[in-house]
Amino acid sequence: MPRMKAAIFVEPGRIVLDEKPIPDVGPTDALLRVTTTTICGTDIHILKGEYPVAPRLTIGHEPVGVIEKLGNAVSGYAEGQRVIAGAITPSGHSAACLCGCLSQDGAGTKHGFKAIGGWKFGNTIDGCQAEYVLVPDAMANLAPVPDGLTDEQVLMCPDIMSTGFSGAESGNVRIGDTVAVFAQGPIGLCATAGAKLSGATTIIGVDALPERMAVARQLGADHTIDFRSVDPVAEIMRLTDGRGVDVAIEALGTQATFESALRVLRPGGTLSSLGVYSSDLTIPLGAFGAGLADLKIVTTLCPGGKERMRRLMSVIASGRIDLKPLVTHRYKLDDIEAAYDLFGHQRDGVLKVAITP
Amino acid sequence: MPRMKAAIFVEPGRIVLDEKPIPDVGPTDALLRVTTTTICGTDIHILKGEYPVAPRLTIGHEPVGVIEKLGNAVSGYAEGQRVIAGAITPSGHSAACLCGCLSQDGAGTKHGFKAIGGWKFGNTIDGCQAEYVLVPDAMANLAPVPDGLTDEQVLMCPDIMSTGFSGAESGNVRIGDTVAVFAQGPIGLCATAGAKLSGATTIIGVDALPERMAVARQLGADHTIDFRSVDPVAEIMRLTDGRGVDVAIEALGTQATFESALRVLRPGGTLSSLGVYSSDLTIPLGAFGAGLADLKIVTTLCPGGKERMRRLMSVIASGRIDLKPLVTHRYKLDDIEAAYDLFGHQRDGVLKVAITP
Amino acid sequence: MPRMKAAIFVEPGRIVLDEKPIPDVGPTDALLRVTTTTICGTDIHILKGEYPVAPRLTIGHEPVGVIEKLGNAVSGYAEGQRVIAGAITPSGHSAACLCGCLSQDGAGTKHGFKAIGGWKFGNTIDGCQAEYVLVPDAMANLAPVPDGLTDEQVLMCPDIMSTGFSGAESGNVRIGDTVAVFAQGPIGLCATAGAKLSGATTIIGVDALPERMAVARQLGADHTIDFRSVDPVAEIMRLTDGRGVDVAIEALGTQATFESALRVLRPGGTLSSLGVYSSDLTIPLGAFGAGLADLKIVTTLCPGGKERMRRLMSVIASGRIDLKPLVTHRYKLDDIEAAYDLFGHQRDGVLKVAITP
Amino acid sequence: MPRMKAAIFVEPGRIVLDEKPIPDVGPTDALLRVTTTTICGTDIHILKGEYPVAPRLTIGHEPVGVIEKLGNAVSGYAEGQRVIAGAITPSGHSAACLCGCLSQDGAGTKHGFKAIGGWKFGNTIDGCQAEYVLVPDAMANLAPVPDGLTDEQVLMCPDIMSTGFSGAESGNVRIGDTVAVFAQGPIGLCATAGAKLSGATTIIGVDALPERMAVARQLGADHTIDFRSVDPVAEIMRLTDGRGVDVAIEALGTQATFESALRVLRPGGTLSSLGVYSSDLTIPLGAFGAGLADLKIVTTLCPGGKERMRRLMSVIASGRIDLKPLVTHRYKLDDIEAAYDLFGHQRDGVLKVAITP
Repeated sequence: MPRMKAAIFVEPGRIVLDEKPIPDVGPTDALLRVTTTTICGTDIHILKGEYPVAPRLTIGHEPVGVIEKLGNAVSGYAEGQRVIAGAITPSGHSAACLCGCLSQDGAGTKHGFKAIGGWKFGNTIDGCQAEYVLVPDAMANLAPVPDGLTDEQVLMCPDIMSTGFSGAESGNVRIGDTVAVFAQGPIGLCATAGAKLSGATTIIGVDALPERMAVARQLGADHTIDFRSVDPVAEIMRLTDGRGVDVAIEALGTQATFESALRVLRPGGTLSSLGVYSSDLTIPLGAFGAGLADLKIVTTLCPGGKERMRRLMSVIASGRIDLKPLVTHRYKLDDIEAAYDLFGHQRDGVLKVAITP
Repeated sequence: MPRMKAAIFVEPGRIVLDEKPIPDVGPTDALLRVTTTTICGTDIHILKGEYPVAPRLTIGHEPVGVIEKLGNAVSGYAEGQRVIAGAITPSGHSAACLCGCLSQDGAGTKHGFKAIGGWKFGNTIDGCQAEYVLVPDAMANLAPVPDGLTDEQVLMCPDIMSTGFSGAESGNVRIGDTVAVFAQGPIGLCATAGAKLSGATTIIGVDALPERMAVARQLGADHTIDFRSVDPVAEIMRLTDGRGVDVAIEALGTQATFESALRVLRPGGTLSSLGVYSSDLTIPLGAFGAGLADLKIVTTLCPGGKERMRRLMSVIASGRIDLKPLVTHRYKLDDIEAAYDLFGHQRDGVLKVAITP
Repeated sequence: MPRMKAAIFVEPGRIVLDEKPIPDVGPTDALLRVTTTTICGTDIHILKGEYPVAPRLTIGHEPVGVIEKLGNAVSGYAEGQRVIAGAITPSGHSAACLCGCLSQDGAGTKHGFKAIGGWKFGNTIDGCQAEYVLVPDAMANLAPVPDGLTDEQVLMCPDIMSTGFSGAESGNVRIGDTVAVFAQGPIGLCATAGAKLSGATTIIGVDALPERMAVARQLGADHTIDFRSVDPVAEIMRLTDGRGVDVAIEALGTQATFESALRVLRPGGTLSSLGVYSSDLTIPLGAFGAGLADLKIVTTLCPGGKERMRRLMSVIASGRIDLKPLVTHRYKLDDIEAAYDLFGHQRDGVLKVAITP
Repeated sequence: MPRMKAAIFVEPGRIVLDEKPIPDVGPTDALLRVTTTTICGTDIHILKGEYPVAPRLTIGHEPVGVIEKLGNAVSGYAEGQRVIAGAITPSGHSAACLCGCLSQDGAGTKHGFKAIGGWKFGNTIDGCQAEYVLVPDAMANLAPVPDGLTDEQVLMCPDIMSTGFSGAESGNVRIGDTVAVFAQGPIGLCATAGAKLSGATTIIGVDALPERMAVARQLGADHTIDFRSVDPVAEIMRLTDGRGVDVAIEALGTQATFESALRVLRPGGTLSSLGVYSSDLTIPLGAFGAGLADLKIVTTLCPGGKERMRRLMSVIASGRIDLKPLVTHRYKLDDIEAAYDLFGHQRDGVLKVAITP
């Protein structure tokens, strides 16, 4: 049985490069030879043991690759084709998928806790920080990369761009809206870009790192606020003449950002939440208008599926936005442990790291 | 200057019947002679001093009456016409109104607290527990009562029915949905009726009072759960075969009901919140799927305006639902202090009290 | 190779019962033993040669049956299970499916003509007026029938009920709406029921056959208009006090009904079209407000997929509506030619015919 | 009684500058001193007698001006303030307004013809090609011009920009969409800009005039098609690899453009129609998928009201788009007859003409 290199979770604190068998291909699967992948903030949660996965699971959910082998029930693709697949891999045939909830494929509620069913790569099945990755439900998930786009150009599509844009989409950002985006990490930067693409005319980015705020301004932020030197709530109310924002996007996953997002909303506004939270949240009574302010709070898990990927790649191909500034570092798969070290400690102004097997 | 009787707030614990001048009519106002009105749970919050209003304000926001006098800029109505006005009286010309947010007329965010701008009667201007009430922006708010409908038949339209139905509407209840409604007071009962009218095929009402659960079953509940004898979350998960509900409506305004509503949602579901809360709320991490479950939380303030009222009266006129069981007691305006006493202490199975000047 | 009986199209004017091989089961297919099916108006178009299909194709797209055999990539079902499948069988993995357009699976535009891709049974693959039928993409399409529901109770779900309800759903019928439904055949009757389930408070059914109008009143019509004795446009304007309707549902597929539906719309209203047209349509300038009346025209092809079927069966199980009056006649598969004769000539007050192999 | 100059309709073929009394100000009105206005294609229809208005009506519906006098029931504004008002002036208090249909204020259906109720300026009341104009329902309609924006910068907001953008908005253009815009006159150019602001990544503009196609490319068109040299339907299908477009915007008002827009739609797509038609329209059967292609046709009348105007001016202020290229010519009010002559004959590459009293 042929073997491959893969970044596997061993125990909290340890993700290592090791060998595993190249997986068998079931009837509806496709095997990809990974050409480029990356590390996500969620992978750092896994590394730290904050998000539990099975020992020896291969990590990673952002694959760019080439079709190596197709299952016998898969048609419409050719071996050798360059493709991506989303971080979330909808089956297409679950009840959730068929009622339009593509990311909640197989999800459920157990003991009052909602399971994250749609996220499979590097969570419930082996991921793509490896030489090969098996893509389930291949016909719903493989999206051919248009000629002329490089691996790095489409590397943000599987997760960062899809998630970030969904912040603007689920928030229903419209032409003329005022939008605040809390945190300008890779997801927040893509939320900023998504708000601009959706027609927002005043976009306010909140962060503390100057290099991130500089990228935010490139991608569409009209104003950036350093929350270490200014109270972002007061500043946003000032910038909006006391009106508040139409949509506030939370892109970090903390009480502070969630709460500030709620405070700056105008009555009738929408808080679009993207963050992965690690503790209970508090809704302050006043910011919530005691329940009478016609507010909406919406959460979105990264939209996946081949059609979503096709659309995101069309955004890149159109030149409407340029996400290349997000890829700040490059590593070989052999050096992935060093990449985890750099990315996990947010050193050297890192935004995203390209990994090439 | 002619005078009239009115129920006025004196201080926490005291709402009394007293005399006030009959108000002058400005160019865009209408003066109604009140024929029937009622007491709302919010009025009890005012009575208890939990919701502050100005001393000597007339209380009450649910008027049925006859047009006594019209402002000189008001057309399309005749003196003597029977009308109702909603509890929330949109001007029609505010920025909020013009972007579809009719209930947030004049609302704003101050110091991170959202003001309740759209609710005027018995909040920022004199209300309708009186012989006469002045309706602002009359052309946007006066809705003629169709012949053949009695005062009591339309008495729920201004607030209870409009608010309760909005729980189903804002939750986007669709044909075939499973809906849980937490609390079966007057608002929750109307939410139950609204869910049925919207096509929900499994409606689960939660309360503890047998007489309310009996009315709930009349109005559309397929199941009722007494939360004192059964854990409602576990029972709803059982009734839905572990799937959870598509929409959960909160109709009380407490942490317990808000939290249970969140726990029973399926991934991708919507919590539609109607309650007036009196303290901060906690979102439990697991019930929130750590932010990754594609959930929505929406809040709605009672929709008002003459077109809303026309539509609600058309529901009554159609015979689709019968809200007469909600009016359990009747008092003269002269006896309104006794009515407050009964209603405030929830004695004698009271749901709603009709007050006739 | 074992053989089965099937109703096949031979040439315009001839659908006959003949023998065919029982089909082989591919990896993602399921073979159903059909227990009950029916004939649709579209089948009559095929019979008459108005809608072309391949010679020797098995006709029929409304199956109730028992799982005989599952493909090797199909999980989550058991042989012997009672199921239905929708008339439209989405794959779940097409671009159309993944962007929420489940009925347009594989559809496309060729030479300016839009192909009907999502409808496969009895159109592009063998249908279910046979002893056995092969269901493609079984995991997206097989919906288990709840215990306690008979074949006849769920027989309308695959097409008539799904299509009819979609008239109200796509038209976005809301609580308090006034709705006109043009034609009260099986689809129109289900549109009437769907409008009622969606909260319409004035429903006006238009037809000419007294027995259909009687069923319309049972299913929710508040008024019925016999278009042979009254001008339906004038009568609807009269019934709505000159206001027009919020939503008009076209359920026949003719210029006359399409045009009347447009004429009775209020400014800002929606024409929800369900009919299968057989010639170009004319939009009268005045009824269209010269393009300035904020009108919408929406068309819907029968929604399919297992989740849709589950929801529709939940409507039946809830007792909210009773579609049993639609099944007026019963035939053995052996006598299907007689059934076609009766149904095609609309004799004997026929609405729908149950066929049992 | 003081008098003013105004461009009035005399008879088909004759709009002349004449004198009229400066209007009296009612309680809810405002009188504007017009500082800049323009001529619309609709005014040319009036000039030609194709759209009937009352003799001696003042024409024009695109005012920029200064508040001269406020009605006694108007608050929140000051005399001397620079403002605009939309071409459509919603009252805010009509049933149409209160159900979100702001442009259909007072509209109705008579004899099957839908009246255009929301458009008042230069249609049912005196317009703004004059020294002064009376704005009805001033509190709903007066939008202060932000400091720093010139009259010409906001001159497109009242009609052209609001209408053009609504083509993208009503068509629900989303990130990644492919959009075709038929005709690149002022409205079509703004529809092109609106599609870009809404995130469309492939925008195809169709026209024949090279200077208009050049402006289209500046405002967002990725491709332009000269319909005189290429069949636009075939070319659009080629550019989209046979997929068709998600949204087609009609911006002219002819059978040819309406029909082509329908032909290039993908199944499930939306035709967003802005044109003012002057004859019945034909829907070709094939392009309509016989009613089974899940298509939508939506029409939109120019959205008005002060909040809409505020939002559009925020787009200009943000610098997201620059509509200055649309103003190609400038005239004094005294020379408006010459301006009509130039604009009506589309001479000298005219797009829009600024008129200053």
